[in-house]
Amino acid sequence: MKRVKLTVAYDGTNYCGWQIQPNGVTIESELNRHLSELLQEPIRVIGASRTDAGVHALGNVAVFDTEARMPAEKISYAMNTRLPADIRVQDSCQVPDDFHPRFCETRKTYLYQILNRRFPDPTRRLYSYFYYYPLDVEKMREAAVHLTGEHDFASLCTHKEEVESTVRRIYSLDVEKKDDMIGIRVCGNGFLYHMVRIIAGTLIRVGSGYYPPEYMAELLEKKDRNFAGETAPPQGLTLLKIDYLAAR
Amino acid sequence: MKRVKLTVAYDGTNYCGWQIQPNGVTIESELNRHLSELLQEPIRVIGASRTDAGVHALGNVAVFDTEARMPAEKISYAMNTRLPADIRVQDSCQVPDDFHPRFCETRKTYLYQILNRRFPDPTRRLYSYFYYYPLDVEKMREAAVHLTGEHDFASLCTHKEEVESTVRRIYSLDVEKKDDMIGIRVCGNGFLYHMVRIIAGTLIRVGSGYYPPEYMAELLEKKDRNFAGETAPPQGLTLLKIDYLAAR
Repeated sequence: MKRVKLTVAYDGTNYCGWQIQPNGVTIESELNRHLSELLQEPIRVIGASRTDAGVHALGNVAVFDTEARMPAEKISYAMNTRLPADIRVQDSCQVPDDFHPRFCETRKTYLYQILNRRFPDPTRRLYSYFYYYPLDVEKMREAAVHLTGEHDFASLCTHKEEVESTVRRIYSLDVEKKDDMIGIRVCGNGFLYHMVRIIAGTLIRVGSGYYPPEYMAELLEKKDRNFAGETAPPQGLTLLKIDYLAAR
Repeated sequence: MKRVKLTVAYDGTNYCGWQIQPNGVTIESELNRHLSELLQEPIRVIGASRTDAGVHALGNVAVFDTEARMPAEKISYAMNTRLPADIRVQDSCQVPDDFHPRFCETRKTYLYQILNRRFPDPTRRLYSYFYYYPLDVEKMREAAVHLTGEHDFASLCTHKEEVESTVRRIYSLDVEKKDDMIGIRVCGNGFLYHMVRIIAGTLIRVGSGYYPPEYMAELLEKKDRNFAGETAPPQGLTLLKIDYLAAR
């Protein structure tokens, strides 16, 4: 038996998210089906991040055990000849038998993209949120500073009753702008349900002048999601990468 | 009667190109249908560039005449509430009655994108050509120099018998690289059928070492398409803009 780690990129447009659903095709169900066919044994992957319907990834991580003799490094190539074009394995390698994609210390990096211009661009509609009103990126940056570091993010998540703690650490939160595309790039040790999209929706309210940047400090204090902005739509979000911090 | 010019962006993935086809939906047929419904009279647009199936545009141009009283500037907004999400009008304005989108002097700018990396990226698959083998961008730039200026491009087009002349002028041909994406940006006074895609396919052969950069001069002399590279696939191509040069 060996444990194999896959790094997986996907266009989430046509999937009901990562996690297996009773109705509807998911990234997890596609991986399980094609891995089982390839390796000729029933495979069930464990995912690192259960992205929502419509959310994309360049580097989500899935782990599974197999008895198959195929070298771990070859699995990426073999899978890519079977998977649909909107899912592509970027890397496959063997990992220690006790490696778990969710219970290890990680750094996850997400990018939320906002297309801020007068008219939508059809060629970027699937990978960004079109926002018509001009956004003040400088104000969004000022607001972002309040969220970096360790905080209780109860105001910036949903389903908080499902987790033991809503405290998380954000290592960096950068608001980039290139031409008409604004990118919110956030790196942290873990994210609560809808957290990145609610951060994006709240920063959009700051950028449009609805909240002042200082409001973010007050918002964290409230510990109540009703005081934050909308959950920004899923297609703007991409999970860029998951770094596993080496055991020390 | 007034003549109206539309600047149109579209994701060509799901269309049989610009031009009306007996079977299949095209950009032209969608524009005609929705303009006719909006303005309550039969409208037939004239397009500037008849892009192929799968080719994208940020700024193609369509012109039509209408008796309707709606101000030309409002037509963009009204159309965008009717059109499918993969077509968006970027601008609408009135033009002189003798303005013709094809018979005026223009500068057209195209971008051909090549994703040059080890594994495909599903989130960019619809807007670039995935090419596995490493490309030498410096050599591609050297080759591109031979194509700038006025030349007979008979070697770099198909259906040359359908045009009076295969002489065209390329104002600039730049090979850009950002991370793993190579962009071939070409600006010229007109392009022959498949010309940008054959230029891209030939530059790819130079970048992979199959042709030396100097081969481009020889290729132009041959005036024979069989000596050029493949026609690169349509999804890598985007018509960026068409500049109409002011009458002097």
